[in-house]
Amino acid sequence: MTPTAPVYLALVHHPVLNKQGDVITTAVTNLDIHDGSRISATYNLARYYIITPLYEQISLVHRIRSHWVDGSGATKTPTRGKALEKLVAARSLKEAYDEIMEEQGRPPVLIGTSARPKAHQHITYEALRQRIYTETQPFFIILGTGWGLAEEALEPKIDFYLPPIKGPSDYNHLSVRAAMAITIDRLLRA
Amino acid sequence: MTPTAPVYLALVHHPVLNKQGDVITTAVTNLDIHDGSRISATYNLARYYIITPLYEQISLVHRIRSHWVDGSGATKTPTRGKALEKLVAARSLKEAYDEIMEEQGRPPVLIGTSARPKAHQHITYEALRQRIYTETQPFFIILGTGWGLAEEALEPKIDFYLPPIKGPSDYNHLSVRAAMAITIDRLLRA
Repeated sequence: MTPTAPVYLALVHHPVLNKQGDVITTAVTNLDIHDGSRISATYNLARYYIITPLYEQISLVHRIRSHWVDGSGATKTPTRGKALEKLVAARSLKEAYDEIMEEQGRPPVLIGTSARPKAHQHITYEALRQRIYTETQPFFIILGTGWGLAEEALEPKIDFYLPPIKGPSDYNHLSVRAAMAITIDRLLRA
Repeated sequence: MTPTAPVYLALVHHPVLNKQGDVITTAVTNLDIHDGSRISATYNLARYYIITPLYEQISLVHRIRSHWVDGSGATKTPTRGKALEKLVAARSLKEAYDEIMEEQGRPPVLIGTSARPKAHQHITYEALRQRIYTETQPFFIILGTGWGLAEEALEPKIDFYLPPIKGPSDYNHLSVRAAMAITIDRLLRA
């Protein structure tokens, strides 16, 4: 079985919350870039967006991508270049959303993730997987760094939220890298 | 439904392979410690072992654990302390194995993971999940850093291998952090 819908992934660094609930901008990290790109290649995602409004951080993303895709990293470790080809930086979720809409000719369905249960607009992993394997409009999976997406400040608005990732405990503080891996595997495992 | 078997997790830094197939010792990284501990707390694992023969690296694991469990990190971010309580260092897989055997009164079943398909002794994620939720002997899930576990040099021997993690592509180069998150979620998701 092959997915019929293109799936895009974003790691958002702004607008996100800090521990106190303020809207902040987190720093882009090298490991999140690599881990997310490798997940995107494994699950054949259309693209992996790093979202940050900071010029220097966007420039960092470009430098890392270029080292592995066109630079000396490409000859040393070609498999890493294949993963980082999925990587793109965007200044805002809106910019990425517009890019996808232009590319696909229709807007993506925005799928949010959160470690805290949301009262509204839920979709289960099974229901979303089913849609990805039968429909053709793009789906855009959004993860927030820090203490999660700043819902009120986010544009455009999330269409549906996936439930928090749960194991057999009440602990709900996975790293964003682990949450990303698990979310995508639940939706697209072969 | 609650798991009936205690599940232990190990991240092995020796003996593992490098790209050329030599047996090497990789460096312990701070992020692997945190991500693995947080996964272990989320999925209620019995313990998370960092396996390395290097004295300085074991000492590093102890310092990080102690900062978050007993030190200033514990008051600042108590949730992180709860995760790092799962963390233990061991000098070899054999040492961890013996510790589990002593604690549980019976040896754990050793479950290996690999990005390359193994010819022998397979167990599916579904079959292992079923055993974890019905049996009572300990299971010990083993992940290798670098280019994977050095099977020939590993003591004791792996009882069963899980299949490589697959998405809808042929790319099989996930980070060990992502592979760990996905493996444990497939076995223990609520």
